[in-house]
Amino acid sequence: MLDGVSKLVIVGTGLLGASLGLALKQRGFTGRVVGVSRRAEVGASAVSCGCVDEADVDIASGCAGADLIVVATPLGVFEKVFGAISGTDAVVTDVGSTKGRVVRMACELLKRPERFVGAHPMAGSERQGPEAADGGLFEGKPCILTPGERVDPDALVMVDGLWRGVGMTPLRMDADEHDQKMAVVSHLPHLAAVGLIGQVCAVGGWEVGSTGMKDTTRLASSNPPMRADIIHENRAALAEQLRQYAARMQRLADLVDRDERESLLTELETMKARRDQWLAERECES
Amino acid sequence: MLDGVSKLVIVGTGLLGASLGLALKQRGFTGRVVGVSRRAEVGASAVSCGCVDEADVDIASGCAGADLIVVATPLGVFEKVFGAISGTDAVVTDVGSTKGRVVRMACELLKRPERFVGAHPMAGSERQGPEAADGGLFEGKPCILTPGERVDPDALVMVDGLWRGVGMTPLRMDADEHDQKMAVVSHLPHLAAVGLIGQVCAVGGWEVGSTGMKDTTRLASSNPPMRADIIHENRAALAEQLRQYAARMQRLADLVDRDERESLLTELETMKARRDQWLAERECES
Repeated sequence: MLDGVSKLVIVGTGLLGASLGLALKQRGFTGRVVGVSRRAEVGASAVSCGCVDEADVDIASGCAGADLIVVATPLGVFEKVFGAISGTDAVVTDVGSTKGRVVRMACELLKRPERFVGAHPMAGSERQGPEAADGGLFEGKPCILTPGERVDPDALVMVDGLWRGVGMTPLRMDADEHDQKMAVVSHLPHLAAVGLIGQVCAVGGWEVGSTGMKDTTRLASSNPPMRADIIHENRAALAEQLRQYAARMQRLADLVDRDERESLLTELETMKARRDQWLAERECES
Repeated sequence: MLDGVSKLVIVGTGLLGASLGLALKQRGFTGRVVGVSRRAEVGASAVSCGCVDEADVDIASGCAGADLIVVATPLGVFEKVFGAISGTDAVVTDVGSTKGRVVRMACELLKRPERFVGAHPMAGSERQGPEAADGGLFEGKPCILTPGERVDPDALVMVDGLWRGVGMTPLRMDADEHDQKMAVVSHLPHLAAVGLIGQVCAVGGWEVGSTGMKDTTRLASSNPPMRADIIHENRAALAEQLRQYAARMQRLADLVDRDERESLLTELETMKARRDQWLAERECES
């Protein structure tokens, strides 16, 4: 696994970074894994959990001599990290939930941008920190790779091997297409859930809320600063999705108000069929 | 259990009606349970599943001599059922997901409306029909009762005993207050989920949809005719909720568009805290 990588550095040892280290070790990666954390106690915790071999609090010294660097910090810290590793010859990848601005930052800040391959491993959890690390977190999930046109083929092979090595299925996509689609299937549902909680806060009804309410609003319990970073990075695509969604809900309000049962029933049947088909296809793939 | 009830009739032997019959039998109800179904084969299936003792396809003959009648048909059939049992002396309850119009119909159509106690057992499943019956479906869940001001105390005791007898916790509420609150915590989330699927249909992104998308849109897979009935019955309260929600999503679009990170972060933190508190309180109660 990952032949030729003798030093792998994970910058940021939160849930994703620590889980990646743990997964690599559990699957037999024999190189050295270094974790860089802003706070020494988080790094110490990642070492004691067996997620990394060594910890460092300094990005530049931690990454010195690395063959592969994985940026696993919150999105708001990426600019600082790319700045600190700007001169590196290592292959670089990341775990950011948005890709357009990340790819543009890598192009601007890294001396060898052709060695950068953006990645979005589609795995996560509401839990946080290295104590919640899970070596099986990535297993069977898709990982979207957004290599640029001038990517170094060796770098692409290495990054593909990293994510495949922890059990993921890599998919290639243009960075801006990725952000547009994630706005629809992830960032919009998060704010739709926040809005539903807002309605209950305004009108009441907590005591009769059941599993439907619980499932529909699960994303509203995700980590607020992490979500604020994602919203900030992807604001143009997301604002457009929110506007379209608001207009769609207003059209549904009009149908309900005018008691247009046949149009509503057609809408419910169409959307149920599309969702059920999506789930059936997902089932087949996994 | 249910002393004095020697004949209990369940009108409608779909998932809820059949599960009720099964739960009563499993918990030792010794009276006769009759299931009324529109189609003879559904009734036969309910008998062979052990959910009811006997089946009938005629409402009036099935309900003759009953002590307790449970209306468990789709909402759209309630008017016909109340008409067919208008002269009954039995205590009557139901399982309808909306209550205002049901209570008004009972008052208008039943000879002894004081013997009617509206109920909304908050239990369900995406599955359908007597084959999917589950004797544990009601266990530990709330059941909202909406007795009128002039309710016969004996009827209230009997209906309370029925739902408590299958493991539910009865709660009392005004019928219109029930509908208003259900619009917020159940009917709005359903259409919010339908709208999210609509956005993916319009823009694409199925291939990157993950568990967040799956959970947030689960309600969009519910039974369309059943949902259309609920929407029709509760259209005034629901249309108002949809309008408020559309406006709320438009306000979020504006915040995202203007990149107002601090306001957004406050909103995300407030809504996460309220949701987490709700879940913690629910946990304590169950």
